Amino acid sequence: ESANEFRFQKDTLTQKLKETESRNQTLEAQLSDLEQRLESSQLERDTYRNNLCSLLELLDSKIFELTELRDMLAKLMEGS
Amino acid sequence: ESANEFRFQKDTLTQKLKETESRNQTLEAQLSDLEQRLESSQLERDTYRNNLCSLLELLDSKIFELTELRDMLAKLMEGS
Amino acid sequence: ESANEFRFQKDTLTQKLKETESRNQTLEAQLSDLEQRLESSQLERDTYRNNLCSLLELLDSKIFELTELRDMLAKLMEGS
Amino acid sequence: ESANEFRFQKDTLTQKLKETESRNQTLEAQLSDLEQRLESSQLERDTYRNNLCSLLELLDSKIFELTELRDMLAKLMEGS
Repeated sequence: ESANEFRFQKDTLTQKLKETESRNQTLEAQLSDLEQRLESSQLERDTYRNNLCSLLELLDSKIFELTELRDMLAKLMEGS
Repeated sequence: ESANEFRFQKDTLTQKLKETESRNQTLEAQLSDLEQRLESSQLERDTYRNNLCSLLELLDSKIFELTELRDMLAKLMEGS
Repeated sequence: ESANEFRFQKDTLTQKLKETESRNQTLEAQLSDLEQRLESSQLERDTYRNNLCSLLELLDSKIFELTELRDMLAKLMEGS
Repeated sequence: ESANEFRFQKDTLTQKLKETESRNQTLEAQLSDLEQRLESSQLERDTYRNNLCSLLELLDSKIFELTELRDMLAKLMEGS
């Protein structure tokens, strides 16, 4: 091969490498962005779950209080 | 005693008896009225009690359904 | 009429009056008893009604609290 | 530059390009995996939300039915 041919191949490879590295950076940025979205989505879901958990406990106490009311009504009727 | 005296006593007794019998009728009417009021009050109370009993059963079923809802919420949260 | 006849009528009337007065006392006792039962039944009913009234207010507050819980759940779902 | 030097540079570049392309494929695979996880997480969240939405509607109807029961109790007490 001639020196020109080698130079041409080198330039082509250098160009290809540059493009691939650029594509690489884009992918890494996308990956980092997606990871952050997944993480923030996970945090959101945890907060959501904790709030739901509090609501479930609140619902439990309301059902308990309605059951107490029901027992008071039953006792009132028994006594009459 | 003279015949006049006897007649006077008889008239007095007859008058007294008349008044007492009249008072008697009044009392019997009051008693009958009160008995009817007591009976109708008892019937009312029974109806009231039956209605309350239906409401208690309805409350029971509502508490049961809220408990089912609570269990569905708990199951939903477990699965997530 | 003879004195004997008068005496007989007087005794009959006196006996009748005694019986009627006795019946009278019985009726007055029954009436008084019934009045007391009616009054105590009324007092009982008032107490019963007041207790039911308290239960109704309690039920109101439980429904209000369940509605608050419902709104919290709706707000939580809106935000997600 | 000599032909040897060019050949050396070409080999180096070829090696670098290979590595970069390999890293690229890894990143694309990671990205694709993450996208699928995000998508499935989104689907899950939608299902979750729909289930919660059904529970909210159920809670609404239970509150409505408790309010009807409350009104029946109030009406019963008014009538007495």
